[in-house]
Amino acid sequence: MHTPENLKASFLDYLNTHSFPLAPKELFEPVNYILNLGGKRIRPVLLLMGYNLFKSDIQPALPIAYAYEIFHNFSLVHDDIMDASPLRRGKPTIHQKYDINTGILSGDVMLICAYQYLQEVQPADKLAQVLSIFNEVAKGVCIGQQWDINFETTNQVEIADYLRMIEYKTAILIAGALQTGAIIGGGSDSDAQHLYEFGKNMGIAFQLQDDILDTFGDTASFGKRIGGDIVQNKKTFLYLKALQLATPDQKTILHQQYTTPITETREEEQKIAIVKSVFKELSIEEISSQLRNEYQDKAMTHLQAVQVKEEKKIHLKELSEKMLNRIV
Amino acid sequence: MHTPENLKASFLDYLNTHSFPLAPKELFEPVNYILNLGGKRIRPVLLLMGYNLFKSDIQPALPIAYAYEIFHNFSLVHDDIMDASPLRRGKPTIHQKYDINTGILSGDVMLICAYQYLQEVQPADKLAQVLSIFNEVAKGVCIGQQWDINFETTNQVEIADYLRMIEYKTAILIAGALQTGAIIGGGSDSDAQHLYEFGKNMGIAFQLQDDILDTFGDTASFGKRIGGDIVQNKKTFLYLKALQLATPDQKTILHQQYTTPITETREEEQKIAIVKSVFKELSIEEISSQLRNEYQDKAMTHLQAVQVKEEKKIHLKELSEKMLNRIV
Repeated sequence: MHTPENLKASFLDYLNTHSFPLAPKELFEPVNYILNLGGKRIRPVLLLMGYNLFKSDIQPALPIAYAYEIFHNFSLVHDDIMDASPLRRGKPTIHQKYDINTGILSGDVMLICAYQYLQEVQPADKLAQVLSIFNEVAKGVCIGQQWDINFETTNQVEIADYLRMIEYKTAILIAGALQTGAIIGGGSDSDAQHLYEFGKNMGIAFQLQDDILDTFGDTASFGKRIGGDIVQNKKTFLYLKALQLATPDQKTILHQQYTTPITETREEEQKIAIVKSVFKELSIEEISSQLRNEYQDKAMTHLQAVQVKEEKKIHLKELSEKMLNRIV
Repeated sequence: MHTPENLKASFLDYLNTHSFPLAPKELFEPVNYILNLGGKRIRPVLLLMGYNLFKSDIQPALPIAYAYEIFHNFSLVHDDIMDASPLRRGKPTIHQKYDINTGILSGDVMLICAYQYLQEVQPADKLAQVLSIFNEVAKGVCIGQQWDINFETTNQVEIADYLRMIEYKTAILIAGALQTGAIIGGGSDSDAQHLYEFGKNMGIAFQLQDDILDTFGDTASFGKRIGGDIVQNKKTFLYLKALQLATPDQKTILHQQYTTPITETREEEQKIAIVKSVFKELSIEEISSQLRNEYQDKAMTHLQAVQVKEEKKIHLKELSEKMLNRIV
């Protein structure tokens, strides 16, 4: 069994030897830029781990792992335009460094190139299945992004809607990567399906943890400013659950905080403090952690159901825990 | 043999019974909107005609024809954002009717859904080949669009560069549609390749004709305002050829006309008249028509080389002539 660190190193070797063409540079330079900004490479590593449960020589899986990483980065490039985000991994986003049109067209060619790497699937008779999963997941990511956009302008977000949104926007790509790894590794459809469910539930748990840390973490370990979701009035699970449990008075406070425009940083800090104190009164951190654990447990149940020796699953178990603890 | 009109009708039946999902409507309503704006449906019809050279029951080819039409419309949606075009087929473009983010995300999901229709290829063992052609063509269209963008801001456009740009941006999608039709219809690789070359040369001839009519056509038959390319300082074949042949005085006039900003419509009409008179002095219409005919002849040579009875090719010959004469 390869360790996740080994797999990441193999993947980065592959990525470094498979740069995009040099011309036209206006189109491809931004692609190479974004693909080399770093990142955890979670999706390709998980795909390789799913594969490695069944086969040890990971070379044939590398182009497919790359396809998932390219797709993920494509979605970041276009999402960053839609969200008007200036930074990604601490560096300027493509539309910021170049312009919006460059972001659109370079993103488009990335999506197409992801499909070009999918073509290299071995064994070749898995192409239809691999393509089908990829298409379904890719379409789902767009749908999740649309829901996320919709939630910004509606007050009618149900908790179930939010969970479905993070499932589509974040979790199913992780799920699809694991499932695809298993399929090309020669795992049974049932094992591949369990790995999909493992990845999906882990992805949801991971996103819930992200929401929790955004409000209750500390900047040092979270790596981002604490309270960002509150400042941006994001309708996360924490906020939606708080609204559901709030007394009329608490509801008034939350509504007020989430609808009053802010002009100064000082006001932001006040807002974060007020909202956090309501969250605390309602035990939102504990409730959210509880839900996160339920998803994590569900993930583990599916991993257990995969018909390979337990010792082979150790790395996936560990990585999943590390992801929740942000040490990956 | 089905007539192009029959094939278009069958395609439209298929399109009408394969609308995009209703939810989330913010994502898919724009897709249904753009796909139902009409248009000549040239690419799907040519794909079906390529198929119909070898097989008569066109049903299995319809999803693949749809994939090409969806891709073409995806590229229009994103190009219209990049070009800030308010109208498409006389109706508001998606980013105009909704907003830019909607144009980006709806375009993305169209590209993915094009791949979902490709999956339905019959016989299934053609999937790898069909996918490979589609990927190559789709990537080429992005590269062509990038060159087109680059040409706007450079004075160093060679005629060969321009011809390569229209080949990539316009012609290869037509070429790929014909080639793909032949392949899934059971044509030989050689026949499919000749149909690709037929489509490519026809596509270039068609674009050259478009450039000629934009300057020398009449509004009634062209359907667009005459002189649009001149007003927008487009570096078409006509302009580039004129620059190449111009005397120093004519060159000065062209440079001046293509660099002086215009504020009034009256000035636009003057500019069109001045540039056209230089073009006429240099016989640009005749030279351009000559080049268009060379591409058209080359297209016909490739069509002749396809190993099916001549009578089967009649519709393709006629359609290709009609496309040049704008009666399709």
